[in-house]
Amino acid sequence: MSVDLRGRSLLSLDELTDEEIDHLLATAAAMRTPDRSAPLRGVSVALVFLNPSLRTRLAGETAMADLGGHAAVLSPGTDAWKWETRDGAVMDGDTVEHLRDAVGTISSMVRGLGIRSFAGMKSWAEDAAEPLLKAVVAASACPVYNLESAQDHPLQSLADLLAMREAVGPTLHGKTFVLAWAPHPKPLPMAVPFAALRAAARAGMKIRISCPEGFAPDTAFLRAPVEVVHDRAAAGDVVYCKSWGAPSLYGKWDEEKALRARHRDWTVDAARLGNARFMHCLPMRRNVEATDEVVDGPNSLVRHQARNRLLVQKAVFLETLRP
Amino acid sequence: MSVDLRGRSLLSLDELTDEEIDHLLATAAAMRTPDRSAPLRGVSVALVFLNPSLRTRLAGETAMADLGGHAAVLSPGTDAWKWETRDGAVMDGDTVEHLRDAVGTISSMVRGLGIRSFAGMKSWAEDAAEPLLKAVVAASACPVYNLESAQDHPLQSLADLLAMREAVGPTLHGKTFVLAWAPHPKPLPMAVPFAALRAAARAGMKIRISCPEGFAPDTAFLRAPVEVVHDRAAAGDVVYCKSWGAPSLYGKWDEEKALRARHRDWTVDAARLGNARFMHCLPMRRNVEATDEVVDGPNSLVRHQARNRLLVQKAVFLETLRP
Amino acid sequence: MSVDLRGRSLLSLDELTDEEIDHLLATAAAMRTPDRSAPLRGVSVALVFLNPSLRTRLAGETAMADLGGHAAVLSPGTDAWKWETRDGAVMDGDTVEHLRDAVGTISSMVRGLGIRSFAGMKSWAEDAAEPLLKAVVAASACPVYNLESAQDHPLQSLADLLAMREAVGPTLHGKTFVLAWAPHPKPLPMAVPFAALRAAARAGMKIRISCPEGFAPDTAFLRAPVEVVHDRAAAGDVVYCKSWGAPSLYGKWDEEKALRARHRDWTVDAARLGNARFMHCLPMRRNVEATDEVVDGPNSLVRHQARNRLLVQKAVFLETLRP
Repeated sequence: MSVDLRGRSLLSLDELTDEEIDHLLATAAAMRTPDRSAPLRGVSVALVFLNPSLRTRLAGETAMADLGGHAAVLSPGTDAWKWETRDGAVMDGDTVEHLRDAVGTISSMVRGLGIRSFAGMKSWAEDAAEPLLKAVVAASACPVYNLESAQDHPLQSLADLLAMREAVGPTLHGKTFVLAWAPHPKPLPMAVPFAALRAAARAGMKIRISCPEGFAPDTAFLRAPVEVVHDRAAAGDVVYCKSWGAPSLYGKWDEEKALRARHRDWTVDAARLGNARFMHCLPMRRNVEATDEVVDGPNSLVRHQARNRLLVQKAVFLETLRP
Repeated sequence: MSVDLRGRSLLSLDELTDEEIDHLLATAAAMRTPDRSAPLRGVSVALVFLNPSLRTRLAGETAMADLGGHAAVLSPGTDAWKWETRDGAVMDGDTVEHLRDAVGTISSMVRGLGIRSFAGMKSWAEDAAEPLLKAVVAASACPVYNLESAQDHPLQSLADLLAMREAVGPTLHGKTFVLAWAPHPKPLPMAVPFAALRAAARAGMKIRISCPEGFAPDTAFLRAPVEVVHDRAAAGDVVYCKSWGAPSLYGKWDEEKALRARHRDWTVDAARLGNARFMHCLPMRRNVEATDEVVDGPNSLVRHQARNRLLVQKAVFLETLRP
Repeated sequence: MSVDLRGRSLLSLDELTDEEIDHLLATAAAMRTPDRSAPLRGVSVALVFLNPSLRTRLAGETAMADLGGHAAVLSPGTDAWKWETRDGAVMDGDTVEHLRDAVGTISSMVRGLGIRSFAGMKSWAEDAAEPLLKAVVAASACPVYNLESAQDHPLQSLADLLAMREAVGPTLHGKTFVLAWAPHPKPLPMAVPFAALRAAARAGMKIRISCPEGFAPDTAFLRAPVEVVHDRAAAGDVVYCKSWGAPSLYGKWDEEKALRARHRDWTVDAARLGNARFMHCLPMRRNVEATDEVVDGPNSLVRHQARNRLLVQKAVFLETLRP
């Protein structure tokens, strides 16, 4: 009957039951009312960023503070030592500390460990296997929170689900979710598009991917029907705008660049959006991925999504770390 | 009768009434006694530094912690994304996130947003117009604290006022405040000199600027009489030592450098100080701006000013954020 | 009878009496049980890192948070101004703020100041004199915590003592402590080896240094008998693995590199360890300083040492800062 997530990690939406998701989102929604009871007093977590962050870092730090606990933010390679990740490595080169020792140390001092580590973008198979996230989980003595890995971002999934339930209505089942590819000066990884697809699939939405030829990703992991269309027009209830590098040329980014550059007209504008709700995880290249008109328009959910990142983070910390 | 600053921003001393200033300074002075009642428990702010900081960052972080709340420190460009500031920009270059989205996000997660952004130093008119500070205010969903902008620094104004009241006496009216230009290897912006002038003018002090020819700034904004003298001798009750780039050659810094270099003998030493109190906002180039003898001497208020930065910060957070 | 450390600095194990060490270690051991009473509520410290850190930073930040207080982390040169350290310097070069002003400011805002500053590695005499640590102490208005200086690391000493008492037994007197030199791609300073020797000497252990010729350090400061052996085999109860640059060629690191490179076979492996307990402060170059087999083996105390860093930090903050 009752959901108990104490001591649990959060690596992917895939690990949560429908009931657990409902419980987390209800808890998140209740977080809108400030709470001065400090339920996590004396509880500390560490948030490790191997890549830059604004939303995730601020949401994590603020979530713990608002709950009476503390989040220490670490950026190895900047303010701490650069990590070796290969097992059995003879460390006579640049890396100063092995991930196993760093994670072992960190996780012995705190009650939870958040980790952000973007895709290496060299090999699809390697990125899909999430080697760094798995190595952190293996080395950690405490629960691990995925703060965006090579191909997943569960806190984004939860924030997006909450935003869709609130804006589109509690019954998302059968509505159409369009993942709309958009131009970008750089090839981006699949973490957010896959996290958004996971959210839509779990909500029972009809999934359509609107992208140029060569950009359709392998979505076998979803175990849900996915329709791919290669035209810009993509009517739906929700248009989730996101850029990603062409999977057909993954790792060959010099080649891919030319292909991507051919599709600069895929910017999500008012015509492409139609009457759909507009979503984007941010940060966004304005007037490249989507026009100002769309982003700042009445159908845009980007502010809700960002705000929900904090609410969802508070719910996850509270439910997994409460005494 | 009673002053209520809840929900207010702090962008400049100009926005505060005399009564509000008195109230903030009285609150600041009372902050010397530690308070374990945690009046801001559950309250979080974000402090965004687009430029380096020691005093402001430590004062802000410590102020919130001492009051039971939390300040998250963000440094976009270092640990987060670099911001685009131009409206309508087509973001296909280096900037990864628009200020509007970043500030919108941050201000949706916290109760107050501090921002430090130094002058661009290219155009006097642009710096005087404070475009970045205004853009942050326009984009923010919560109160904004100016942690030093192109041409203002209200927390410094308040800390300096408190230091002068304590050291010179509660009646500053009619005393002479000398803003004493000093040499420096780099052309510095007007934020601190203007903030100090605002403080002196509000206290009803007689204002004298002692600087070489070409260095007198446009002080029309003060609406107070300002005497400019071009000799080093500058007797007064308070000598506020500060360097700034020559306004007469603003933006033409290669040319200005030669002019500035001609005045290396304007260092504030014991003779130039006379019997006045010595003030400086720090950081300071010792033995260039002022001699060790003066800075560490019995008439120096630099430690009081620095200490007051914390007290004033606590007063501002407490008064604007208390329930 | 009762130990009272309130208001005390912690610069070296040498400054603590045996009774004070016992008291700190007993307090540290009791910190394993979480405490929600927030004994340091309203108390702030600043931790200043002039060099990178993982363990010390996380331990310091988490320790204060767990006790209900706050630790602000500052990294001058990265997110704040670079410090001038020379007395009387004419600051017309790169340094923007004098240590005296920075430390004066920081220590006026907080109740304790931690400082990390590694050895300059140019002159043995200068490093042994600890000029930066002493300058910080002289400039500080509040207690100072040494977070690793040129040749000392008292929090490591305490954590190591606690680990040895727990693993080897409460009676360390007469047991053999082997400081085992190990290969490393870079010449490392003496802070940790000397801190470990201080711990072993205070515990009354027999001290043996196992190192190649040219690597025996001057241990006159210990005032305890030290046996130096120049062979890899070094039986003992504890083997403390650590690399350091050859004191015989201190500062002449180009020359030293060739000498050091000749001893790559000094890696601590199972044969060299024998039945001894294995210790290392981390970070470690795995399979260069010691083999994976040893580090991850049943005799390894590296996790205990790391975990103890937090416990010891909490004990030191609580005992020196409690009301």
